Amino acid sequence: MSTSVGIVSAQRASFDTPLVCKSGAVLSRYELVYETYGTLNADRSNAVLVCHALSGNHHVAGYYADNPKNVGWWDTMIGPGKPVDTNKFFVIGVNNLGGCHGSTGPASINPETGKPYGSQFPVVTVEDWVASQARLADQLGIRQFAAVMGGSLGGMQAMQWALSFPDRVRHVLTIAAAPRLTAENIAFNDVARNAILTDPDFHGGDFYEHGVVPVRGLRLARMLGHITYLSDDVMADKFGRSLRSGKLGYGYGVEFEIESYLRYQGDKFAGYFDANTYLLMTKALDYFDPARDFDDDLDRAFAAARAAFLVISFSTDWRFSPERSRAIVNALLHNRRDVSYAEITSAHGHDSFLLQHEHYHDVVRAYLERAWNEVAA
Amino acid sequence: MSTSVGIVSAQRASFDTPLVCKSGAVLSRYELVYETYGTLNADRSNAVLVCHALSGNHHVAGYYADNPKNVGWWDTMIGPGKPVDTNKFFVIGVNNLGGCHGSTGPASINPETGKPYGSQFPVVTVEDWVASQARLADQLGIRQFAAVMGGSLGGMQAMQWALSFPDRVRHVLTIAAAPRLTAENIAFNDVARNAILTDPDFHGGDFYEHGVVPVRGLRLARMLGHITYLSDDVMADKFGRSLRSGKLGYGYGVEFEIESYLRYQGDKFAGYFDANTYLLMTKALDYFDPARDFDDDLDRAFAAARAAFLVISFSTDWRFSPERSRAIVNALLHNRRDVSYAEITSAHGHDSFLLQHEHYHDVVRAYLERAWNEVAA
Repeated sequence: MSTSVGIVSAQRASFDTPLVCKSGAVLSRYELVYETYGTLNADRSNAVLVCHALSGNHHVAGYYADNPKNVGWWDTMIGPGKPVDTNKFFVIGVNNLGGCHGSTGPASINPETGKPYGSQFPVVTVEDWVASQARLADQLGIRQFAAVMGGSLGGMQAMQWALSFPDRVRHVLTIAAAPRLTAENIAFNDVARNAILTDPDFHGGDFYEHGVVPVRGLRLARMLGHITYLSDDVMADKFGRSLRSGKLGYGYGVEFEIESYLRYQGDKFAGYFDANTYLLMTKALDYFDPARDFDDDLDRAFAAARAAFLVISFSTDWRFSPERSRAIVNALLHNRRDVSYAEITSAHGHDSFLLQHEHYHDVVRAYLERAWNEVAA
Repeated sequence: MSTSVGIVSAQRASFDTPLVCKSGAVLSRYELVYETYGTLNADRSNAVLVCHALSGNHHVAGYYADNPKNVGWWDTMIGPGKPVDTNKFFVIGVNNLGGCHGSTGPASINPETGKPYGSQFPVVTVEDWVASQARLADQLGIRQFAAVMGGSLGGMQAMQWALSFPDRVRHVLTIAAAPRLTAENIAFNDVARNAILTDPDFHGGDFYEHGVVPVRGLRLARMLGHITYLSDDVMADKFGRSLRSGKLGYGYGVEFEIESYLRYQGDKFAGYFDANTYLLMTKALDYFDPARDFDDDLDRAFAAARAAFLVISFSTDWRFSPERSRAIVNALLHNRRDVSYAEITSAHGHDSFLLQHEHYHDVVRAYLERAWNEVAA
């Protein structure tokens, strides 16, 4: 029944108005790559923006003509007849500023020096991303999104949309997210960052000029990340204590299946992801904290929000636990906002937000049908 | 009321009978350093062996004459009038084979080559440690221990004593341990090992000859370890999202207090701990699995045990959760063994076993008073 949006291709938007980042750094000009699925309606009221998480990008659904196996990361969620129904909505995926999939980022050429930005690329924040996405919406003639949605760091961007541009988003879907990271979350990010920062091939962020890549650091960062994306249970079910060769080797090579899996994931990631992008993405996660400017009072932070919210968490997500999602829900309720909440029972930990799950998808589908009724009204 | 055992000094025992490790590797001769507190009674029935965990050593209680600040790692637990009362018991702390605090280990000179063992030091197991500890007991004239005790990896050694030498231990105290690691536990260890193995200064384990130390890898391993030893709650309480300078720096230096803490711990550890010891300690953790030889049936594995057990877990220990301790308890009960179990409510995660905690210490005290009554009877 559910089908794919089919062949897609990336588009590119250029921006010449300088973007002043929260840090004070200025990007004099930049580009964003994005994809769209479905058709923007006449009054431009059916647009849905999908924000990506740490390692995501703008390729959210469909596949490429020259590489049919490269399917978008949320293809199970988005397409004709799928929970985010492209027969109804005009869906936009955008690669974040600072990314490594086509938008201006640390590996891009700095027009002021003629060399890759590297260490000179600013530490961008969730607020900066939302500001840059709003400019893309301007270019596309979209004044108000029917919905902005995302999981994990993408869910934080969706939330920030309601705070930065209250009148430009009608619905926010924030999935497997949190109002801010805990000390433990920051600690895991810091270990991952240190793996990269102390890799001799990192060269202070200017490794491009040395013709090397801090593979060791990226690999460790990804291995560690993967552990925290999965649940203890799913790792036990999937790998347990199985040995690759069936017996102990008494050495430091790969022995347990879980080691093989993690190293494979680490190697794959280190082969395509940019180390500086990894750093700035984790920093954006650490910094996101809308309550900070309101004496840590999340209720006051959310007073500006006007959108209706769907908040979703997953039972085994220990990185962004259901408790953290309920904190968002409570802050919205204290502001008498329109909020729906679902805690999905899933074995797959934080990664659940990326996976096909009937109950989860039904919740998103039902919620967006309501959003669609508003568009169609 | 509770006092210290006072000034202590390490002793050294030499062994010339080759030790055949579980891997098949043979150590032709080796030394163990150890400390003792209290007095061995006439019939040598009051000895308590304390086994250490990953980063521990033989300096369990008291302090050194030339360094009074170097207090034993379990000094709160062991001493005159303390839960392990040295007015009653003769307590032995021993540095594990493969350690880096005086016992023969990877940094020791290999008599066959005249150079440090380095990569040639065998991967030792919990069974090998227990075998080497039994030889130390032989030298000290101790046929049977009143108790063998330890936390974490030390708790695994205590358990193994009941399996390897059922008639040589009357009581086993296994604290914050597990019958075997989960896939998630192994995964964390593998990331830590990879940090060391891929450090260019590791030189395949033979860094001693190069005059360098894989500081970066050890540092990362320790930072990661620390996260898993603490609870999410205690990190939130202790560090929260506090910033060192009070404001965001938009760079990759230390910003949050938790980062400062972790990096400090990492630096300190990398300054004294041996990278090869870290590797083999984590491998011994991964390998420990008494049920493996019994078709994963822990009940059958424990059929050999004769000792009485005290099993203790801590409510917020997510590395070795109470559930894992209950698996030990159940296997013992299925074998109709004498077993006591306490789940201690503590905010401090896995590290709880090292900390002073009234309820925890009272449980150990009460249990050992019973063991003492047997000795005195």
